[in-house]
Amino acid sequence: MSYQRAGGRAADALRPVRLTRHYTRHAEGSVLVEFGDTKVLCTASVEERVPPHKKGSGEGWVTAEYGMLPRSTHTRSDREAARGKQSGRTQEIQRLIGRSMRTVFDLSALGERTIQLDCDVLQADGGTRTAAITGAYVAACDAVTWLLEQGRITTSPLKDAVAAVSVGIVEGTPLLDLEYVEDSACDTDMNVVMTGRGGFVEVQGTAEGAAFTRAEMDALLALADKGIRELLAAQRAALGL
Amino acid sequence: MSYQRAGGRAADALRPVRLTRHYTRHAEGSVLVEFGDTKVLCTASVEERVPPHKKGSGEGWVTAEYGMLPRSTHTRSDREAARGKQSGRTQEIQRLIGRSMRTVFDLSALGERTIQLDCDVLQADGGTRTAAITGAYVAACDAVTWLLEQGRITTSPLKDAVAAVSVGIVEGTPLLDLEYVEDSACDTDMNVVMTGRGGFVEVQGTAEGAAFTRAEMDALLALADKGIRELLAAQRAALGL
Amino acid sequence: MSYQRAGGRAADALRPVRLTRHYTRHAEGSVLVEFGDTKVLCTASVEERVPPHKKGSGEGWVTAEYGMLPRSTHTRSDREAARGKQSGRTQEIQRLIGRSMRTVFDLSALGERTIQLDCDVLQADGGTRTAAITGAYVAACDAVTWLLEQGRITTSPLKDAVAAVSVGIVEGTPLLDLEYVEDSACDTDMNVVMTGRGGFVEVQGTAEGAAFTRAEMDALLALADKGIRELLAAQRAALGL
Amino acid sequence: MSYQRAGGRAADALRPVRLTRHYTRHAEGSVLVEFGDTKVLCTASVEERVPPHKKGSGEGWVTAEYGMLPRSTHTRSDREAARGKQSGRTQEIQRLIGRSMRTVFDLSALGERTIQLDCDVLQADGGTRTAAITGAYVAACDAVTWLLEQGRITTSPLKDAVAAVSVGIVEGTPLLDLEYVEDSACDTDMNVVMTGRGGFVEVQGTAEGAAFTRAEMDALLALADKGIRELLAAQRAALGL
Amino acid sequence: MSYQRAGGRAADALRPVRLTRHYTRHAEGSVLVEFGDTKVLCTASVEERVPPHKKGSGEGWVTAEYGMLPRSTHTRSDREAARGKQSGRTQEIQRLIGRSMRTVFDLSALGERTIQLDCDVLQADGGTRTAAITGAYVAACDAVTWLLEQGRITTSPLKDAVAAVSVGIVEGTPLLDLEYVEDSACDTDMNVVMTGRGGFVEVQGTAEGAAFTRAEMDALLALADKGIRELLAAQRAALGL
Amino acid sequence: MSYQRAGGRAADALRPVRLTRHYTRHAEGSVLVEFGDTKVLCTASVEERVPPHKKGSGEGWVTAEYGMLPRSTHTRSDREAARGKQSGRTQEIQRLIGRSMRTVFDLSALGERTIQLDCDVLQADGGTRTAAITGAYVAACDAVTWLLEQGRITTSPLKDAVAAVSVGIVEGTPLLDLEYVEDSACDTDMNVVMTGRGGFVEVQGTAEGAAFTRAEMDALLALADKGIRELLAAQRAALGL
Repeated sequence: MSYQRAGGRAADALRPVRLTRHYTRHAEGSVLVEFGDTKVLCTASVEERVPPHKKGSGEGWVTAEYGMLPRSTHTRSDREAARGKQSGRTQEIQRLIGRSMRTVFDLSALGERTIQLDCDVLQADGGTRTAAITGAYVAACDAVTWLLEQGRITTSPLKDAVAAVSVGIVEGTPLLDLEYVEDSACDTDMNVVMTGRGGFVEVQGTAEGAAFTRAEMDALLALADKGIRELLAAQRAALGL
Repeated sequence: MSYQRAGGRAADALRPVRLTRHYTRHAEGSVLVEFGDTKVLCTASVEERVPPHKKGSGEGWVTAEYGMLPRSTHTRSDREAARGKQSGRTQEIQRLIGRSMRTVFDLSALGERTIQLDCDVLQADGGTRTAAITGAYVAACDAVTWLLEQGRITTSPLKDAVAAVSVGIVEGTPLLDLEYVEDSACDTDMNVVMTGRGGFVEVQGTAEGAAFTRAEMDALLALADKGIRELLAAQRAALGL
Repeated sequence: MSYQRAGGRAADALRPVRLTRHYTRHAEGSVLVEFGDTKVLCTASVEERVPPHKKGSGEGWVTAEYGMLPRSTHTRSDREAARGKQSGRTQEIQRLIGRSMRTVFDLSALGERTIQLDCDVLQADGGTRTAAITGAYVAACDAVTWLLEQGRITTSPLKDAVAAVSVGIVEGTPLLDLEYVEDSACDTDMNVVMTGRGGFVEVQGTAEGAAFTRAEMDALLALADKGIRELLAAQRAALGL
Repeated sequence: MSYQRAGGRAADALRPVRLTRHYTRHAEGSVLVEFGDTKVLCTASVEERVPPHKKGSGEGWVTAEYGMLPRSTHTRSDREAARGKQSGRTQEIQRLIGRSMRTVFDLSALGERTIQLDCDVLQADGGTRTAAITGAYVAACDAVTWLLEQGRITTSPLKDAVAAVSVGIVEGTPLLDLEYVEDSACDTDMNVVMTGRGGFVEVQGTAEGAAFTRAEMDALLALADKGIRELLAAQRAALGL
Repeated sequence: MSYQRAGGRAADALRPVRLTRHYTRHAEGSVLVEFGDTKVLCTASVEERVPPHKKGSGEGWVTAEYGMLPRSTHTRSDREAARGKQSGRTQEIQRLIGRSMRTVFDLSALGERTIQLDCDVLQADGGTRTAAITGAYVAACDAVTWLLEQGRITTSPLKDAVAAVSVGIVEGTPLLDLEYVEDSACDTDMNVVMTGRGGFVEVQGTAEGAAFTRAEMDALLALADKGIRELLAAQRAALGL
Repeated sequence: MSYQRAGGRAADALRPVRLTRHYTRHAEGSVLVEFGDTKVLCTASVEERVPPHKKGSGEGWVTAEYGMLPRSTHTRSDREAARGKQSGRTQEIQRLIGRSMRTVFDLSALGERTIQLDCDVLQADGGTRTAAITGAYVAACDAVTWLLEQGRITTSPLKDAVAAVSVGIVEGTPLLDLEYVEDSACDTDMNVVMTGRGGFVEVQGTAEGAAFTRAEMDALLALADKGIRELLAAQRAALGL
């Protein structure tokens, strides 16, 4: 018999997804993304400069930073600014978000400017990185719209949409969109990032305990595919597309 | 003729104040405080340990950390965790919040445990440190209630309430509760922290341009006194007292 | 027509693999692993202590650090010790190596001690992280043998073998064990870690340019499976098993 | 009955103040300031460059750094250079000194150069920050004189004088210029910075234990006013004005 | 014809040496050492604890830290506390001072406590490290006397005296006790540390430009020997021995 | 009776010296130097830029960095990149290597470019810094040859050769080229750097326990002179000169 999820959620069901645009005022894009009790504030900031490796290239840059508020978690975590460095986990996640976003951008069309995505977790309940990617895409869309409205660019540098979800196997049952208690208990955990056209951007599967089989991976990829289609629809709805 | 504030606000009026308790789920106290467009999330975390200088003392500790989300501001600020250190301003503010909170706590009655206050600015429009103090007090109250409910303490260690407001002189007019454009333009800027009984906890006045006179200081202190009384009332209302 | 590899290497062929045990004298395990021109020195050090989260648990710990000599690369990279921090990439890789190793260890059987794996790249030509995992396993075996010989443990804590390889798609051709020029040119890059019994430990696929399809992923996983079987055989041969 | 001070000092008396100019050789201004047993070496260095935010502005900059020798204090403090960072207290103090100095400078008249004030505590007995401000002003005067003599500027950028003193309430008695034992025992502690014309530059009052009343603040401000007038006279005497 | 020194100083003459004991109040030993215009404040602090590698050994520890005030030099140097790290030069010098002091201490006789020597350069004119060693020894003597007076130890742990001087070759002339302009111009620079009994503790000779010959080294060592005898006499005189 | 060395080595004998050129592929010079069981990989990297203090000077720069792999030593040392800073010992050694190399370079003839020497200890058994200097010179020669072959310079900037050896007194016996057990046991330890023409570049003698006499120093310098002549010959042989 399979694992019973909290609230009677089906194994292949996402948690309620909410994408609230214009959540804060100053950023060119600002989206609160909620996957159930996971809440991440994603802002997109336009900066009229590029990092050194892009200077003079005619191309722009898209990059991301990630952080968790100290008490977004069940027990308080140290504040990274106070400790004086970002953890390996933080760096891994922000690199993942940045790469995922760049996949859907035409950096030439962006011009020599940077879209800086900041993903800050207000409340964590599993899946913060996948929520961050899903929300950051919407914030990036708003920043692109702002650039178009400002006349700084004339065509959108966005080539596709991108969203992400976690999947995993808990007590033998493949589950979509793990919440914290499931994530802690799972044997295998996979984060999948896909584009609007259904291509894979990132697949990161990790055996937490025992190794996983090819059949298990296939089941997880199928679940992820289903979940990401729904997330892409939620993004389109939020953007009024 | 005196300075005209945005939205026709009177010189001695606070911006709309909102104190939303239980804003996030995990913390023992979690309050979103809003002074107009300034929004600060204040969480209170109970930790059953104390810093080295309190070990074995029988006394507890109350301390605070402060941060701004990178795009809480008009233009994006560097993420302190990525830069690897907290700015002098950040340290100054979190020391102020911690001192202010400790003034209303009986550390013996708290017992050897720590209440850690985290004040994270989601959106900044002036007065983030005074909003943080005002909200952190409410979060601390909720954490104390939790400690009482858990039976970890039997009497409240809170001796008084505490709230804070900024005042300043813009174009010769003393103003209460400066918003960002006023803060940038002001000649003198003062942050005042007071207790429920009307005592001063902190008075920090700074001449931004020209030095200020004793008469100006008196006018500012009177404004602060008025504003803090209103903030204390808002705290009581939020706490249902 | 498919991509032609340097030296006429077949698309599904590993580079020559060499595992030289006892490469340096002091470590309990010391292996130079070579995947063609990629050379990584993997040492395993036994330390009779565990990190804080394992203290008193009766369990041991297995962890890894990774570094590149500044001129292991085509152009010199900054020395991380001189810059004062490890890059995100370095942390990501050393976390991957550590997780992969822990998958094959029974930490209870290890007892409260640590096996510290240090993987230092002497010469880089692509695939340094997969070479590091493949070599670190052999170094860990030698450290386990040393522990058994010393009588510190009586049964081996090793439950399985583990090896890793990179695969990728260059100009439409799926390739096994990418060397540097292929890695730089590839559209999709995947690092796969598998156990001796054929289970997956990690699958990390990244679209460098365009997203990749499910069919491409399947082709890459098949290549990785083939390569890892050969690497596991090379490990057994090096260990005289 | 009121608090009895060491050596029969009156409640409203400063400690002996000494301002020794040209204390060291290399700096454009170098002043040893002594408030009783508190000794701070203040040097003013002229640098023909400005920080980035002033580049091209036609304006100069005045800034300060503060440090304590490790054994300037009763028990040895860690060396901040060895710990790798300045404490929050240090940063707070050096920001205060810098702001205070800038209040009396016309940065346009200074031209695009920096006056860097270094305030290093050789011996601490309370009031180091107020001694530092009082001494730094004299060092700054000497640096301005040097600039005039060198012909680099033709009119002095100094608009006024500035000095500072601490005041506090110990066992109910308001005291001027707290020494260490008084500072440790005081209920309320206030640092006041004023100009030669009697304007306030900074007022920083802190309740150490109980909150303070408006009447107490008024008493403290009156004491500070008296003390600062005497310090301004001592500065003029030291400068031969 | 040989190099002419400032002020007609003979090639084999020290600058005027002054050792002022009890220069500051709080430290167990506090000595201002002056070699001409080089002025270093050396304090000795007794701490009733030892670093980890001496815990439980029954032995004490003697160590040193070194710093230069930012404007002790001709042009201002960055403050190491603000930069967040000590330079290689600083670390090299403080390691030298610590080693030199330990040579004359019987660490068993000191008992499990630390003598921490802080050498802070108030004014630099060449030879700061040798002045620091010479002064630190006198400060250490005063700390030992304090320990004896306090009854914490009953016999002195000091086995010998120690002093240091620089020597160098400028325009072909071997010179004793280099001042800054000589140090900048010299071809070879040697720092020599010797004990009261005439043994060598450290010899650090460096060719700044051309390599130096054995004959030059012999001439320098003879000069150093002469100078250190005089410094040892000055130490004895300062200590009233 | 004198100290008996491991393997019957004579007191004035070097360990077997091996200099393996082209040890790794990417660097312009890459030499594995072995002094017995001490193995140091020295790479020379040519970079077409100079540090700020050489910009526009027409001169080049030669500098060095040093590191030990964590398990190059008998017991594992912390990885400096993970700790976030280089130890004082590391900085001292890399400064020594850099100075030694610059002594034999005509920086004008090098042109405005940098030769960066990286000396990484793969296995440590005493004398790592002297082996590093001896090997780095050979790597530098190869980098110079590469520059000549590339036509970037037309005459060699190398003015002389340079090599280094350690000497020390163990149980009263002066020994050449200390290995680890000797280094740990020695009373006096001296590192000597000399040029091909027999001049001294650096002499760094340290009393580890008792001070040393002039006669002991003379004996050590004679031993060092003998050893360095042999090392210079080994360098010439390795370079085919």
